[in-house]
Parts: sequence; C-alpha cells; structure tokens
Amino acid sequence: MPYFDAASTAPPHPVARQALLAALDEGWADPARLHRSARQARMLLDAARETVAEVLGARADEISFTASGTQALQLGVLGTLRGHRRRGAHLVHSAVEHSAVLHTAERWEADGGSATAVPVDRHGRVSAEEFAAAVRPDTALAVLQSANHEVGTLQPVTETAALLGDVPLLVDAAQSAGRLPVPAGWSVLAASAHKWGGPAGVGVLAVRKGVRYSSPLPADDREGGRVPGFTNVPAIVAAAASLRAVRAEAEAENARLRALVDLVRRRVPELVPAVEVVGHPELRLPHLVTFSCLYVDGEVLLTELDRAGFAVSSGSSCTSSTLTPSHVLAAMGVLTEGNLRISLPTGTTRPEVDAFLEVLPRVVAEVRAPLGLDLPPTGSADALVLDTLGKRCPIPVIELAKHVGEVAPGGRIAVLSDDEAARHDIPAWCEMCGHDYAGEAPATEYGGGRGTAYLVTVRSDRGR
Amino acid sequence: MPYFDAASTAPPHPVARQALLAALDEGWADPARLHRSARQARMLLDAARETVAEVLGARADEISFTASGTQALQLGVLGTLRGHRRRGAHLVHSAVEHSAVLHTAERWEADGGSATAVPVDRHGRVSAEEFAAAVRPDTALAVLQSANHEVGTLQPVTETAALLGDVPLLVDAAQSAGRLPVPAGWSVLAASAHKWGGPAGVGVLAVRKGVRYSSPLPADDREGGRVPGFTNVPAIVAAAASLRAVRAEAEAENARLRALVDLVRRRVPELVPAVEVVGHPELRLPHLVTFSCLYVDGEVLLTELDRAGFAVSSGSSCTSSTLTPSHVLAAMGVLTEGNLRISLPTGTTRPEVDAFLEVLPRVVAEVRAPLGLDLPPTGSADALVLDTLGKRCPIPVIELAKHVGEVAPGGRIAVLSDDEAARHDIPAWCEMCGHDYAGEAPATEYGGGRGTAYLVTVRSDRGR
Repeated sequence: MPYFDAASTAPPHPVARQALLAALDEGWADPARLHRSARQARMLLDAARETVAEVLGARADEISFTASGTQALQLGVLGTLRGHRRRGAHLVHSAVEHSAVLHTAERWEADGGSATAVPVDRHGRVSAEEFAAAVRPDTALAVLQSANHEVGTLQPVTETAALLGDVPLLVDAAQSAGRLPVPAGWSVLAASAHKWGGPAGVGVLAVRKGVRYSSPLPADDREGGRVPGFTNVPAIVAAAASLRAVRAEAEAENARLRALVDLVRRRVPELVPAVEVVGHPELRLPHLVTFSCLYVDGEVLLTELDRAGFAVSSGSSCTSSTLTPSHVLAAMGVLTEGNLRISLPTGTTRPEVDAFLEVLPRVVAEVRAPLGLDLPPTGSADALVLDTLGKRCPIPVIELAKHVGEVAPGGRIAVLSDDEAARHDIPAWCEMCGHDYAGEAPATEYGGGRGTAYLVTVRSDRGR
Repeated sequence: MPYFDAASTAPPHPVARQALLAALDEGWADPARLHRSARQARMLLDAARETVAEVLGARADEISFTASGTQALQLGVLGTLRGHRRRGAHLVHSAVEHSAVLHTAERWEADGGSATAVPVDRHGRVSAEEFAAAVRPDTALAVLQSANHEVGTLQPVTETAALLGDVPLLVDAAQSAGRLPVPAGWSVLAASAHKWGGPAGVGVLAVRKGVRYSSPLPADDREGGRVPGFTNVPAIVAAAASLRAVRAEAEAENARLRALVDLVRRRVPELVPAVEVVGHPELRLPHLVTFSCLYVDGEVLLTELDRAGFAVSSGSSCTSSTLTPSHVLAAMGVLTEGNLRISLPTGTTRPEVDAFLEVLPRVVAEVRAPLGLDLPPTGSADALVLDTLGKRCPIPVIELAKHVGEVAPGGRIAVLSDDEAARHDIPAWCEMCGHDYAGEAPATEYGGGRGTAYLVTVRSDRGR
C-alpha cells in the first residue's frame, strides 16, 4: 500500500532498524553508571551525539536528546525564555508554526508572558522584515520553522536571523532535518528523529554554546541538565545512524522526489476540477505537496483514498476531532476544507504516484457526486440570498458554488450563515474562484435570523 | 560478565526484543492518523494499553504512556498537585523517594508550594501513622514508593493509603512493577518499563478515574492530554509484552532470586569484616540487597569489582559526581560510604552469585589494605583528639576506626572535621559500632582550627 504520509512519520529507514537491533544488545545499560556495560552504552551515546552534531552543524556538547520533537520544542521554547527572563517575557513566532509551538506560546501567555504571531503570505511564508519588526525590547525569544509541515513552504530563516540582533532564534527543523541542510542562524534548534526515518522516542534539542537556558522542568543530571529521565541509548543510536544515512542519500533522493511532486502539482489541477495547490510554488520541501479539493471534506477524501489503497493526510477539516480548521491554511487565507497533504517517503516510485493520479479524480468525483455540483449555465439574476443558517461548514460554500451560476456577472449573492468557519472560507473561496468578496452584514438585513450575511459580487465564471 | 545492576536497568527481556522488532514493522505509523497504517498502530497501542492496565490493576483509560519513569513521576506529581489546587499546595512524601520526586518537590517549593518529607526508620521504612500525621488540611498530594530503589525496603502503601482520607496518593512502583503485584490504595501510579525488562523510552502514568489532574505542560492531545509528543508505539508494545512475560514468571523467579539474595545477606558479613547489610531484613524486594563496607569508598569498590568482572552499583559515595551522599542512606541514619547495591536480573544463577562471594572479600581487603586498619589492642587513654581538619570524608571515620582502640571504654574521642558529611557519618558509625555519640562542639575548644569537634564516648570494643 503506497504510503504518502511521510510528514506525519517516515517508515523506519533500514539502517535505523539495524542500528536499533545492534544497540539493544550492546547499549541497553544505564550510561550514567560506572561498570563496563554502562561505559559501553556511554560510548555508543557519545558517538551518536557526535554524528547528530556533525550532520546538523552543531557541537556535540550543544546537543541534548529529548523524547520527541514536541518535547524538544516545548523545552526549547520555555527553557530559552526562562534563560532570558531578564530581557523580558515576549515571544515572537510565525502564525504557521507547529501546534506544539502555538500551544507552548498559549501556556506561556497563560502564565503571564506575551506572544506575537507574525502573519504569513498566501504561500505560507513569513517576510523576514515583518518578522523582525515584531521584535520588541522585551522580546526574549523568536521561533521560526525551517519549513512548514502542512504545505512545505520554506521559511527565510537565515535572512530573518540576520535581522534579529541578539534575540535568540529557535529554529524548528522537524520537517527538513536530514533532507536539507539546517539553515544558518539558529541559537536553538529542534528536530525529531521519526520524521527522518529514525525510531520514535528521539527528538533533538540543540542550544548554541553561550545561549542562556534554564530548564522549565525539575532538576535532573541527564542530557546536560536539559532532559530528565533514563537516556534511550538504543533509539538514539538508531536515530543517529539513520540521520547519517538519510543525509548521504538526500541529494539524489530529493531530486527524484521533487520530480514526482512536480508531477503531482502539475497533473492534479488538470485531472480534478476546482482544485487549488497551496504552498510556495518554488521555495518548498522536495517531497511534500498539499492541495484543496473544493466543496468536499478532507477527511472523507482521505478515507476514500485509504479504501483505494493510498495513505495520505488531511491538513485540516471542519469535522476533524478538534473541530478547528487548520491554523496554517487559515493563516494563509486559503480554503481550509477538502485539503490533502501528500508527503513522499524515501523510495517512493513513479508507478506509485501514477497509480495515485489515476485514482484521485474518480475518488473526488464520487465524493462530490451527491452534492449536485453540475452547475447550470450563467444566469441573469441580479441578486440572490442563500440561507444556510444552522448548516455547518462546508455547506455554505457548497451552496455558493451550486448557485453562483444563477447570478449574472456583477450581481450580488448574500450567503447567510451562523458557522464561524464561513467568515474565513467564503472570502477564501472568492479569492480562489475569481469573485469579489464584498464584506459582511447582519443576516437580518437579508431576511434571515441570527447570523451573518457574507456578500459576494459575481465577477466572472472562473472556477465554476 | 555477571550483571548485578537490575535496579538501574534490567537487560531487555527476550520477549521485549521480539515484540519491538515486530512492532517496528507493524506499528511505526502515527496512531493519531486515519489511514490503514495508522489504524494498525492504534490497534497495537490499544492492545498494549489493555495489557499494561490488566497487569497493573488499572483500567485501560486510566493509563498514559510517558517517555520514562522520571517523566511519569514529574507529570504525576505536578499534574495531580495542579488538579487539586483548590485544596492547597502542600505535598507530603517520604524522605527516601527517588530523586525525581525530591527534585520535583524542590521545584514545587521554589514555585511557591510547600512540601514535607516524612522520615524513615533505620531500615528505610516509613510508619503509616507518621506519614498520615504529616497530612494537613491543605495537603493536595501524598507520594510514597512501593519499594525503595537503594535498599529494597517495602513501604506500607496500603496501610498508609487507608489513613489518608481523600488526599490522593501517588505510588512510585518503579522498583516493584512486574516483580510484585501493585499494592492497593493508589490514586496515581508511576512505573518504568526498562526496570522490568522492557525497552527504554516507556514509562507509565496511571490516574484513577475521578482523580483530578491538570497537565503542567503545554496542551497536546496525545495520551489523554497527559503526555505530549509522538506516541512511541513499538516501544510501548514491547513494554507491554515484557510486562506480561515478567509478571507470569515472577512467582517462580522471585523465589529463586530471594534465595540468592538471602545467601548474599548471610555470607557477606561472614566473609567480609566490618560490613553492615542495610534495608529491612524481611519486608524487602526479592532481588536486591545493599551493604556498606566500612572505611572504603563505594565507587572504588565498584570499580575494582568491575575489573573483576562484576557489574554492581554504589548507592552512594562522598566522591560521586554530585558530591552529595545518598539521601536514602542518610535518611536511614546508616553509613553512606562503602555502599554496594546488588540487584539481580531475571535468570541470575547460583554460580554467578558464588563467584561474586568469592571475589568480594579479596577486593574489599585490597581496597582497605593501604588504610592500615590492623587495629592495635585496646588502649588505656582517657581522651584523644583526632585532627582531620581539611580532610574529606571518609578520612574522619577511617581515623576514628584506626584509633578507637587506643582509648579505654568510657573514654572520649574528639574528631575534628570541617567536612559536612562527618556530621552524619560519625554518629552513624557510632550507632553501628556500639559506641555512644556524645554530640558536637567547636573544634577550637579542642585545639583545632575552624571546624567541628564530633565527640565519641568509647563504650566497648564491638565493631573494631
């Protein structure tokens, strides 16, 4: 079964499996003890630390191993903020960071700190200047990802770092480490081994020599005082071995996967009507592509693709378990529904991608069929009111798509809705389909009940 | 090489290795996703949770998997305290808990909470009544280990729980889980897989249904909102499989190991002069024995035993990396030096233990030889001043042992020392050797410089 969800987790690299097995036999003892078994574990740990440091461009004594990328981010953010308390309690981060960063920022604010989320452009990329402009005299830490985990857009890390002065920059390299060189400019670096084909249970927290750090957790000697608990030597050994292997293969593999992703980016809009490929067209990860199929739910698509034998991910959905749309897509101002993320693991083949491109149009068509989207020819009404009050997203946008053809160019449609997601989705749909979003008004002004009227001026028949 | 350090970490159980391998192939995907690989990982995770719950006497939905036993303790202590904030901010724990608990208590106090350490008797055991008496109206959590990690003494968990009313009790079962049934009475339970022969990277945090818990970490959906970060399914599967295997073998294996430990407890004092076996003589773990060899450093002994082919641990040493003596031995009021902990993994054989008993007397004698402990016959001096100012522990006790024979029974020795450890060690030595500790005075009163005079009344010639 083709697995196209490497951005969630990569299948273990063969080298990881092999190294884990060997290290289970040779490195299971407690590296903090003094006997022979312990010394052997310590030697394996030291060697793994050297390897990871070398690949990531750090010194061995700057590297601590955590239990996950999320733990690396939480500790990196809170520990660096604590270490710079004298400077202030302000945190700057992009609006499209991993939820682990956003949740840590929320906790920081709940505990009395402050945080600023820097907006991104329509491709999900921050401007280095805009990011640097958010820095204040009391800013104690800035956080920026190397590449976005949902849409693959690369961030201007090095350019941003150059504008930050002495404000430390934490770079979340989880999506790129192993595949791409770590961009220069970090003071603190976070990564996650299972994203590069290492085992679960290993994250990396690197803190540059001289950067002040104060652990937010109770005291513990392990990992330079940064990560409490028994050190997982076998998994760390496997993480280091696979990082080296993946990095060595990266140049060739990136070129191969980039060609496959380019194929998906080009063919999907040709094969599937009403699709928007999101993320930066050039400055992006080689192995990841995300697109939105209008009028349908990402989870439904994902489930149908799974039935057809393809493992993909949906960046977001109005009906996901958390009931909140993707913060990344929302920050980009693109539609948050019908979203599919295709992320190719090492070794993905052209026939696998071809098979996906063959199946996708049928699956999307089947999911859309019951919606009745066979749009009538352009109509001549001057105005139309679509009452979707009480209906959940994506119904408002589906109704809009169904009926837009009934209104003449220049005419006005008022979509009445009481679902908060419509406030974002209707303008995004307009942007995508070439109509003008004309603002909102109380639904009562259009004969509706409690809710909002979202006003659309029909400009053309693009995107129907 | 015989490995007698199972209390630090047990060698991986064969079942753990096998299960880890299988789960690496079948359960590497993200269990939070929706595709087939994810569902498979989730099924393995659910099954592992059921197994662990069953063995530990919990419900599956009470179990969260952490990255280590230390993380389980930190989260269990801080999360339960946060969950009971309305009740107050007072924590009660025994004085001999794992350092992870003590460091968490320190952090809690630094952040404005309060904590009471309940003392233990000479065997390292708390009294249930004394423990319960430390509870106040504002006590939000009590913490008690199932068994001590340095000396093996079992704590009266169930008796204590019965006296605590509605104050939640966190039980640290790290040293006993798998080997012994979990004692009844816990509200929160912590354990660590690598202690029972599972892989590193897995701890268990169980919170009884209805016990209020509020995570001290930033929000995250994983593991019931209690443990952030990617779930390590393969290691959890291996942890569960090995727990079931170890528990099934425990009755037979405990009887076997208890006989070997009894042999060590009986033979070591017969084979080695001036040895004290510490910990409760009856209420103890089956596989662990700790003894102190007077006048020598535990680390030196450990190193020599390692050269002779035996991996053991030293519960404490004045010269360990942290330079603080074992808090457990100090709380018990026994000597903190020359300490060796022998903890037998599953499968330890009689010939291995016999070989250890053959080597130990020679190693101790060799380490002691340069100290000149061939004590002279009982002397007749009425008083003696031993000036050890500027000398580090264990020199003061060694000097005392060397010269005690020069003083007649009833006579007085003043040991002058400026090492803080002497304040504990000299009374402990007296207790052990049958002399009376008569208190302290300024060293200047005995002709010394800046320091303390520790006064010993020679009562008999026991223990010379």
